[in-house]
Amino acid sequence: MIKIAIDCMGGDYGPEKTVVGSCLALSENENLYCLFYGDPEKIEQAIPDSADQSRIEIITAEEKINSEDHPLKAIRKKKNSSMVKALNAVADGSADAFVSAGNSGAIFAGSLSIIGKLKEIKRPASVTMLPTVSKTSPNYFLIDSGANIAAKPEHLVQYGKLGSKLAEQMLGAENPRIGLLNIGEEDSKGNDFTKETFQLLSDSEDFNFTGNIEPHTLINGTHDIILTDGFTGNIMLKSMEGMAGSILNELLENLNASDDLNEDTISTVEILIHSSIRRYTNEDVGGGFILGIKAPVIITHGAADTAMFKHSVELAVSLKESNIFSSLNE
Amino acid sequence: MIKIAIDCMGGDYGPEKTVVGSCLALSENENLYCLFYGDPEKIEQAIPDSADQSRIEIITAEEKINSEDHPLKAIRKKKNSSMVKALNAVADGSADAFVSAGNSGAIFAGSLSIIGKLKEIKRPASVTMLPTVSKTSPNYFLIDSGANIAAKPEHLVQYGKLGSKLAEQMLGAENPRIGLLNIGEEDSKGNDFTKETFQLLSDSEDFNFTGNIEPHTLINGTHDIILTDGFTGNIMLKSMEGMAGSILNELLENLNASDDLNEDTISTVEILIHSSIRRYTNEDVGGGFILGIKAPVIITHGAADTAMFKHSVELAVSLKESNIFSSLNE
Repeated sequence: MIKIAIDCMGGDYGPEKTVVGSCLALSENENLYCLFYGDPEKIEQAIPDSADQSRIEIITAEEKINSEDHPLKAIRKKKNSSMVKALNAVADGSADAFVSAGNSGAIFAGSLSIIGKLKEIKRPASVTMLPTVSKTSPNYFLIDSGANIAAKPEHLVQYGKLGSKLAEQMLGAENPRIGLLNIGEEDSKGNDFTKETFQLLSDSEDFNFTGNIEPHTLINGTHDIILTDGFTGNIMLKSMEGMAGSILNELLENLNASDDLNEDTISTVEILIHSSIRRYTNEDVGGGFILGIKAPVIITHGAADTAMFKHSVELAVSLKESNIFSSLNE
Repeated sequence: MIKIAIDCMGGDYGPEKTVVGSCLALSENENLYCLFYGDPEKIEQAIPDSADQSRIEIITAEEKINSEDHPLKAIRKKKNSSMVKALNAVADGSADAFVSAGNSGAIFAGSLSIIGKLKEIKRPASVTMLPTVSKTSPNYFLIDSGANIAAKPEHLVQYGKLGSKLAEQMLGAENPRIGLLNIGEEDSKGNDFTKETFQLLSDSEDFNFTGNIEPHTLINGTHDIILTDGFTGNIMLKSMEGMAGSILNELLENLNASDDLNEDTISTVEILIHSSIRRYTNEDVGGGFILGIKAPVIITHGAADTAMFKHSVELAVSLKESNIFSSLNE
């Protein structure tokens, strides 16, 4: 069994999304065991009748860390919060991974202080799996998608080393192609940060660095890992997801306002549009995870719906199954 | 008459796109007069029979600046190139604005050394007009979309001042809303650069600074001007355009592969998809222009087709018509 510690009280909606989403994952993954941390009454109410109770455990947590709480203070003071208790379960080995839609700063601070950092990583990064248009290489990892916003060039080399193992195990990539996010492909392109990072990545023999890559090119599936600082990565992520979401909404609106198409056709086209675009919005992505912590820690969006939370729990399972964390901890 | 000096030899295709695109603009804009710089034979061949010859002038330029030329050296050495000759025409007042799909580094260097810099701007920026989903506020200006990649906070204050005038005249915005591109909306978000810039922008009384803004939010039409350094702006631009272009291609491919729709329906839906998405790709945008040069200088994509080049020429006309440059030069 893979035991996932779930902070049920995190996110904008609490158990009605986190517990329901987790139970969706439970019904599709026989190997999954859920540890639900939070208000037992609300958790029990949210568990569907069809759920396999033998793979569910509820652990009472009286407190809750809110989105407006100061991350470090909240972790220190709210010892009985669902987040801190769930993180402790991972730290003491009673759970394999942690999932939360709560205060992301607190998740970071708590993961560092409670579970602990890998020695290979100086400053942890956020990793987000993003879609491409390629059939043979449908996904890549963006490292960093928003954590280490004052990254130094050497941090990106560390991300390259671990990212390469990650892409091998999670994407099945052989000799994963690692690119540096930049505003041009020539070696000399970019600002002081990218120029210095380019040199360090080129000098490293631990992974397959292929050079600079621009955002519009990487969507074609040219890479397995894209390295960048957390600020730039977060801007790229929100630009792409925002554009996809806006196009999806506008297309559906224009389609439904069309006088030239009948209702049947409109619903057929709606399905086609959803199946083409949904994976580029953030709805089908189960959030990101932290690279640099000793166990899988998944941070999903505060506004995650049940489908998204389900994906987050499944991401935790795949990360545990991949064995990447145990190979790193050796 | 508004006289536009056109570098016909620039871009991946030369006159067959630049001249044909300009003539499209000519036929729709009675006030436009085109000065074509380049190889007279190739230019004449490209001019359609229907074009109004009385508003066309061909000026021979024996040389051509290539995309791989060193920008500054090319400007200094190739005095008889179509680019340098066209820039000279703007500098000596025989043309009102300049348009090129050529080597953008050379356009920058040439504009600075031949036309000259506005005193209000320490380092010129690229400005790109981007679309939103809003009906009441369908466009905003991204400053800087890729020129000043090592921008300092005070440069963005200068862009705010001029950008505000630009948005008033070009977008018809009253008291234009200026936002700082960032990874969160709270005042304290971002890296050292955005924090320092936020403070300077807040202190300025010359424009309406509304605070930090994230990429996915600004697509909703919340702002008239988005300020950022050239590196981040270029990443945002290419992420958004790249995503829109990829979605457009994938949707059309999936639509045409659909077994559930007949040919008539497919072509109706194709039109709907094009009209919804095309404006988010770069195809309908006539490139960017430089903020900080004494006259309008439009830089369009090297791969611009005739429609895109037409938009670039029309952008030059609107910038001249807006009088923003003459008010700045006073």
